This record gives sequence, structure tokens and C-alpha cells, in this order.
Amino acid sequence: MEELLNYIQNNYENFIEELKEYLRIPSISTLPAHKKDIARCAYFTANKLKNAGLSRVEIFQTEGHPVVYGEWLGAPGKPTILIYGHYDVQPVDPIELWDNPPFDPVIKNGKIYARGANDNKGQLFTHIKSIESYFRTAGSPPVNIKFLVEGEEEIGSEHLEIFIKNNSDLLKCGAILISDTDLYAEGVPTITYGLRGLVYFNIDITGPDRDLHSGTFGGVSPNPANILAKIISELHDQNGKITIPGFYDDVLKVSKKEKESIRSLNFSEKKLAKEIKVKELQGEKGFSAIERTWIRPSLDCNGIISGFTGEGAKTIIPSKASAKVSIRLVPNQNPNKVVKQFKRFINKVAPKSVKVNITFLHGAPPSLTPLDSNVTKAASRGMEKAFGKKTVFVRDGGSIPIINIFSKRLKAPVVLMGLGLSSENLHSPNEHFNLNHFKLGILSSAFFMKEISEVSR
Amino acid sequence: MEELLNYIQNNYENFIEELKEYLRIPSISTLPAHKKDIARCAYFTANKLKNAGLSRVEIFQTEGHPVVYGEWLGAPGKPTILIYGHYDVQPVDPIELWDNPPFDPVIKNGKIYARGANDNKGQLFTHIKSIESYFRTAGSPPVNIKFLVEGEEEIGSEHLEIFIKNNSDLLKCGAILISDTDLYAEGVPTITYGLRGLVYFNIDITGPDRDLHSGTFGGVSPNPANILAKIISELHDQNGKITIPGFYDDVLKVSKKEKESIRSLNFSEKKLAKEIKVKELQGEKGFSAIERTWIRPSLDCNGIISGFTGEGAKTIIPSKASAKVSIRLVPNQNPNKVVKQFKRFINKVAPKSVKVNITFLHGAPPSLTPLDSNVTKAASRGMEKAFGKKTVFVRDGGSIPIINIFSKRLKAPVVLMGLGLSSENLHSPNEHFNLNHFKLGILSSAFFMKEISEVSR
Repeated sequence: MEELLNYIQNNYENFIEELKEYLRIPSISTLPAHKKDIARCAYFTANKLKNAGLSRVEIFQTEGHPVVYGEWLGAPGKPTILIYGHYDVQPVDPIELWDNPPFDPVIKNGKIYARGANDNKGQLFTHIKSIESYFRTAGSPPVNIKFLVEGEEEIGSEHLEIFIKNNSDLLKCGAILISDTDLYAEGVPTITYGLRGLVYFNIDITGPDRDLHSGTFGGVSPNPANILAKIISELHDQNGKITIPGFYDDVLKVSKKEKESIRSLNFSEKKLAKEIKVKELQGEKGFSAIERTWIRPSLDCNGIISGFTGEGAKTIIPSKASAKVSIRLVPNQNPNKVVKQFKRFINKVAPKSVKVNITFLHGAPPSLTPLDSNVTKAASRGMEKAFGKKTVFVRDGGSIPIINIFSKRLKAPVVLMGLGLSSENLHSPNEHFNLNHFKLGILSSAFFMKEISEVSR
Repeated sequence: MEELLNYIQNNYENFIEELKEYLRIPSISTLPAHKKDIARCAYFTANKLKNAGLSRVEIFQTEGHPVVYGEWLGAPGKPTILIYGHYDVQPVDPIELWDNPPFDPVIKNGKIYARGANDNKGQLFTHIKSIESYFRTAGSPPVNIKFLVEGEEEIGSEHLEIFIKNNSDLLKCGAILISDTDLYAEGVPTITYGLRGLVYFNIDITGPDRDLHSGTFGGVSPNPANILAKIISELHDQNGKITIPGFYDDVLKVSKKEKESIRSLNFSEKKLAKEIKVKELQGEKGFSAIERTWIRPSLDCNGIISGFTGEGAKTIIPSKASAKVSIRLVPNQNPNKVVKQFKRFINKVAPKSVKVNITFLHGAPPSLTPLDSNVTKAASRGMEKAFGKKTVFVRDGGSIPIINIFSKRLKAPVVLMGLGLSSENLHSPNEHFNLNHFKLGILSSAFFMKEISEVSR
């Protein structure tokens, strides 16, 4: 192990240079203009896996962006760990808010700034480098390794889902390791064991067949903007609870032990309010901020538009109004059931005077990982050894839909060994990644492999 | 009088050709690209006044668009009637919804289609042609005449207000005649005696300093879109009443006689719902549709925007949300007072977690014309003679801010002899004007001049 740690130490500067190369590829999956960059990035990823020492590396074409697969299965009797990540990145808009060009990585104060630095190239790279370190020093890793790296995570993983369905034998494994979540705080080793699910809707209200003069028709015409505002406001009560009938029926009660464990984290609500620059936080009464994002569902209007929105004044009653509304779900809420409840409620609340059209755009179930699985324990110990601190177990308010596909198709436990920070501007300008966490991530990955290899399966 | 009526009959086709010429000038006041068209249209208007027979016609330059003034004061001892109108028009967007190019007038089924056909070139032209008919047949009109035609009505009449203030001697008159409102129904002579006032606001809500990930922050961050929706919904109660404290305090109680007169109009709510293509009308409970637009205030959200409004889904909590909200006022509500009440209420309703910025954009007081003034009586009799039917007296839900300036600066009664129909797509694609009303308008104007000349002042 010492030789391996020395290898990591001695090659750390090179790892960063390689990561920079990776970050220079503008692999934006949602923009057709970047199709060539996506192909180049898949090729770059495959090359890195090959150079690390994997025995078989393949780029699988799909109807969307390519899937990169790599494996080394030279440890019979030992567990097989599938490492999942993605090489695609979010768009860079608004470009004018970046302090440096998004695809020209720079290091400032121990952080590397670029689109994808955290999400997910930086985090994924830690595992490639830990495996490489094993091959270079011990001849091979102590467990069987599979890599599955996709190029459509930021656009819904549509073709990865098909790929997994059609290749469940190829992807067969004992556990799935993902680094695409956050540390609880800087330098604190963290395992994420719960994620929220999601349902996302578009609501369209149509009133009069054209924009009307608000003088002539004000007081008689239904106003889609007012009606949509009313509908959205009806979704919460004065305590911040979601009012949809039956909505909380399936919400899993959290154990006293877990509640205490959450409380023991001493989360600072003031610090969070300061970080997002609001005077105070807001949400469901009776729950702490951390409970509200981890163990309670939440509902947000993600966007709304109607009528005249330019400079100045236009005295119209808009003909139409539209909004995006999404709900984060917690175990054991069922997305399909919530979709039905939501539609029923909106149709009940809306007045008869207007046409209402509700479109369900996409969804994902919530997920919970058992804390007592061997792989979670090994990940926890691995991080502890790397970070030199006790691992904390957290949930995350976000959703990783692909986890449910893994559970369903591969029937293997998932462990979320996240290395990011919520303050690192994922999906925003000036995305960055703490290089200390990059290094600790490589070490965590290496220690994890050793820990899991010592567990009989 | 017979000779005059014959002149109108014989020259009617020419009048329409001249009106077409007028409508071909794209005098859109809000678009700087049309500055030359505005100048051309002012010149065209002045020329028509001169050709009609007025003795003095002048184009006054302002800091905005020019004001056209014309006069003939050759009837000492007789009243002086100031005719107000505007030569500017609304923009044509959305251009793709026009069946014919907006500045290439066409006649279909007795209606002339073009931007400005109704509002206000067509209506204004009736008076120019009635005065011309007097000069050509009787040598002169039976009263003194002043014309005041502006080019900024559609953008707030800012420079006309200054012009009136600086030229109150020039504009001195016994009564002001305006044709810029609607007939109660096709072929029904109508005098509008009441208009609503207006206050118009922009509301900006600022929450977090950037769009946030709705998974990570859903449940803790204030959401400006949800908050703005809630604020707007709080402005009405379940009976459609406006909830702002003190808002109804100054609303003038309408006399039993006026209520009965309104009821006797037998207004069809079903027909109106059909006309604007909604399943049913909506508004304050306890009042008929016509009462709700004429004698009751109303509040509308004219536009709202926040967050992601494109195709598909983006899971964000928006940083900002903005809305336009306007209120139509009735006598004796005071715009300044309502502005204060509105601001106080919004600031009270909004949660402390966000920044709220309310901008008052513009306003106008409501107005009521005395029904027993000589000028109103003369206008009523004039229309009756032209239309061959009894004149009805109506209010209008809209606002004509300049009326209050006239009252304040010129201290003369205003009479609103509207010739449009609410179904003629003012401010919308396919604006049109019923040519029968155009002809009846010329006759009404001519009969009015005769009627008012016979009244001693």
C-alpha cells in the first residue's frame, strides 16, 4: 500500500495536467454543435482507461452519445466493482458570468475552475487514477473492475438506460460505486445514502383566444396569469406544506436514530442563508433546513411566463400562461401516484372558465441505500483512511435517476462516495473542484478497493 | 342641411379612398424606425385639415412627435368645439396573425381592415369630413372649430400634456369632442359618459443571488416564482373582490336610476364569452358583467416572468421573478391613494426572505361626464338623427388619461362620441372599422355641429 500511496504522491501533478486536458474538451451533451467534442471526449476517456491498465476497453455507439466501457476481471473470487460516471457536461450559459473561459481550466486557491471540473470529470478521474496506481505498483487492483462512463447524464441518460437493459450480463457486478454527490463539508468524508425522487410538469392555461384590452375586458375575462398564480399558490398551505390530497401518505417516517444522527451534524442554517444570499431560509414548518431537503418532499415553480414582460407597460389580459412545476419526492413516494394526484388537484383548483393542460415531463423515484451493506461499510472505512476523519452519512436533496435503473437491472447495491461541495457552482458559471478533495478522492478510491477486497462476498 | 347630406353621399367613395391613403402611413409611435412615417402622417393630417377649409393649420414640433393644430373661428358668438384625435397607431405584432398586410387597407363585408382603421384614423376622419362638407356646401361650419391631433396617444401623450399646459389660450373652447370609444352595439348611437382610471405597477422579487439547483435547495431556499404567484393570488379573495385594505372606500355608489339604465341594456354575457372564446366569464361576485367593467374596479396581472420558460425541463429555483399588475379604478378612487395602498399591501404580504421592489409605472384618474351638459345633449341628438335610433349612454372599462388633462387645463366638458366596436380588434391583428359607422359618424358629427350651434352658451 505504501508504494501505491507514493505513486499517487509522485504523480499527482501529472494527474492534474491530465485532468486539465480532459476539461479542455467542451463535451456539452445537449448542444448538437458539440457532437464531435462528445466523440472526442468518449475517445479520451477510453484512452485513459486503457492507459490505466484495464484489459478490455470499448466505445459502444448508441442512438445518442457513445457509452465507454472498460474492465479488468483478473481477480477471480474477488468482488466486481462497477464504477459509473459521465464525461458529458452542462452548457456554459450565461457565459458572461464566468471569470475564466469555461474550457480553459485555471487553478486558483487550490481549486480548479472549468465546466465539468466537479461534475463529473474531476470526480470520475479519481477512480481512473486510483486503478492506474494499483496497476503501476501492485500489478493489478485487488478486485475486479468495470467502468461505465456515459455521455448523456446531463440530458436524461436515455440511451444508457437501453444500454444497461441490453447488456446486463456485461455489466454484472457486486456493487456500484458512484462519485457524483457532495461532501457534507470541506474535508469531511461523506457517504450519501438517500436521494430524492422527482416529478416535473408543465402547466398551460388558455383563456381568451387573444390578448385582450385590460380596460374593456378587466372584470369579465378570465385572466390566465392570475389563474396560474392562484393555482401555484394553492399548492402550499401557510405552513409550507404541500396541499395535494394524499401527497404525504407514503412518506416514510424517519427513525429516531436517523433524526438524531441528522441533528448531530449541527448544520448551520445561517451559513446556508448567507451562502445563497437570502435574508432567511424558507420551507415546511416543523422541520429543520436539513430535514427539509433530505427527508421531506418539496415543490418548486421552476419557471413561469405570461403576457407582456418587456420594459414599460402594456394593458392586456394575456391569452395564455405557462409554468414549470417540479416536486422532489422522498421514500416511499411513488412518482406515478404523485403524477395522478397532482393532475387531479390542479384540475380541481382551476376555474371552469379556462382550458388547463398539464404535461408530465419526466420523473424518477426516490432511493435509499442500506447503510449496513458491505460495500457501504468498505466505502466508509476507505474514506476514513484517506481523510483521517470519521465518515458522516447524509442524504441529498437531488435526484440521480440512473440509480433506480441500476437497482432494477443489475440488482447490486449502490454506494455514493461524493467528492464535491454544494458551493462549487455545478450547472452554474465558475464551476470548480477542490483539488484537495481530488487527491483525497484518489486515496479514498484506493483504500476502498482494498477494504472491499478483504470482505468475503 | 340637405345639400350637406347630399355632398356626404356623393363624396363618400372619395372619403374612403382618402382614408385608405391615411391608413397606408405606418405611423407607429413607439418604434423609432417609424419616425419619418410619423412626420409624414402629421403632414398628411395637417393637409387634410387645410383642404377641409380650416383657416389656420399648424404643425407644432415637440420633444416627442409633432402635434397638429387647426382652427376656424369665423362664427363669433357661437360655441367653440375642440375636436381631439390621434394620428399615431399601435405596433402590428404578431404580424403573422394578420390576414392582410396591416398597412395595405382592404375592404371586406363592409369593413375596412388596417392598423389604425378604427383607432383612431377612421374615427377622427369622420370629423374632418363633416367639417369639409360644411365648408363645401354652407360656406362654413355653424360653430367655431379647433382640431388637436397628436402622435403620442399610444405611448402616453407625454408631450401633448406639456403642449396643452403651454397653449391653454390657443386651445380655449366651450366643449371637447372625442371619437375614440365604442358603440354599445352595431348601429346603436352611443355616448360614453364614464371611464375607468388606471394604476400600473411592476413588481420584482429577488431571492437567492443565482438560480439554484432545485434538488439541493428545494425546501430551504425562498422561491421568487412561488412567492410572486402567492402575492398575486392574495390580491383577490374567493369572491373576486380585491383584498387591498381600504381599496373600496372611495368607490362611488351608483344610483338606482343608473343601475336600472344599465340593466335595461339587456347585455348578453353569453355572447361576450363566445366573442372572446372562453367557457364562461369571471369576476367579482354580486355584479353583472357590464357592471364589473363599467362601475367596479378590476385588477389584472398583465404579464409575469421567472426562471426557465423554454422547451423541456430545468430543475432550478429561480433567482428572480417579475410581474406587471394593473388596476382599473372607478369614480371617486384616487390613483395616488391606491398606489400607496397597493405598495403597503404587497410589502405586508411578501415574506421577509426576499427583496421586493414595486415600481409605479403610470396612472390616470377615472372620469365621469355630466349627462345633462348642453354638449352631451347635442351629441346625443346629433347621433340620433344620423343613426335614426335613440342614443344609449354607457360607461367604458378603459381609460383615456388625456381627458383628465383637458378637464384640468381647459375646464371644458368632454363628450365621447365613439364609433368603434369592441370586437374590431383594437391593438390586435386584423384591426378593422365598420364603414357603415364611418358614414354614420360623418353624419353624426355634422348633426352635432348644427345642434350645438343652436344652443346658447
